[in-house]
Amino acid sequence: MSPDQIRALVRTIPDHPRPGIMFRDVTTLLLDPAGLAAAIDQLAETVTHKPDLVAGIDARGFVVGTGLALRLGCGLLLVRKDGKLPGETIAEDYALEYGTDRLAMHVDACAPGQKVLIADDLLATGGTALAAARLVRRAGAEVAGARFLVDLPDLGGSAALRAEGIDTASLMEFAGH
Amino acid sequence: MSPDQIRALVRTIPDHPRPGIMFRDVTTLLLDPAGLAAAIDQLAETVTHKPDLVAGIDARGFVVGTGLALRLGCGLLLVRKDGKLPGETIAEDYALEYGTDRLAMHVDACAPGQKVLIADDLLATGGTALAAARLVRRAGAEVAGARFLVDLPDLGGSAALRAEGIDTASLMEFAGH
Repeated sequence: MSPDQIRALVRTIPDHPRPGIMFRDVTTLLLDPAGLAAAIDQLAETVTHKPDLVAGIDARGFVVGTGLALRLGCGLLLVRKDGKLPGETIAEDYALEYGTDRLAMHVDACAPGQKVLIADDLLATGGTALAAARLVRRAGAEVAGARFLVDLPDLGGSAALRAEGIDTASLMEFAGH
Repeated sequence: MSPDQIRALVRTIPDHPRPGIMFRDVTTLLLDPAGLAAAIDQLAETVTHKPDLVAGIDARGFVVGTGLALRLGCGLLLVRKDGKLPGETIAEDYALEYGTDRLAMHVDACAPGQKVLIADDLLATGGTALAAARLVRRAGAEVAGARFLVDLPDLGGSAALRAEGIDTASLMEFAGH
């Protein structure tokens, strides 16, 4: 499946969640058997050095994270909304448009010496991916990179991740918000 | 990897979320590269007829759902907490210990004639899986079965699913709550 064919499976919902926003909905890509497999395979091909773990970000990042972990032969680390993990956690805040939210990780989920690749479905401002990166680094592990199905480069997330020294790649880009 | 080896990777957190509950934490299984792959492979082997879609339930069910969809060559349908999907949805309530919660699905995510396998990490009372099954059936599609990493049979979920005619299987069982 070509990149254009994969991209055509992403549905755009205009004016969601509010006027002027073109929402890129990957659920229609995931529903397509060939699209799902091709998206995961082609994203995995952008990973040149196998990490120890793939960190999937709650909740659609669990889809991309699981796919990459299985394709690359890594373990899967769940980075969750705060309050969802049963063991001892560390947490990091990230900015929302209004206010903040908080991501958490089990404190023993990764360890010094391990390389952790961050995975999510969509990269916008990069706030959640950067919070995940801080969690991985606080645990002493190395951020091996970040991978996304969709990048909205005009929102600055890929530039912000690269400014933090994080190797960043996505399967497709959409202009605008 | 043997079933006993997979089972040993599930961490038990006593008295979580409250005294007397033995919380079965699959995150430690997912962190193990061989454990993750073996769990998904062995669960996929319990599926004898390939469905059209695997419906993963928000949020850890996205892990199992993605794994099964990739292994079986199906599409992935996201069944989400209400309010998280951008398109037009249908929704079903399910009972919590105190009160109710609501699952939603895009109204066009599956269609009459399609076979949909439900996937989640853990089967307790079966409330969320039954709500997912009602959504699939309301869309006119067929529930092809339900698959879980962990079953807590004393909580009655597997019996409740089978009473609804749903082929149900899990990779491992734990006695008690």
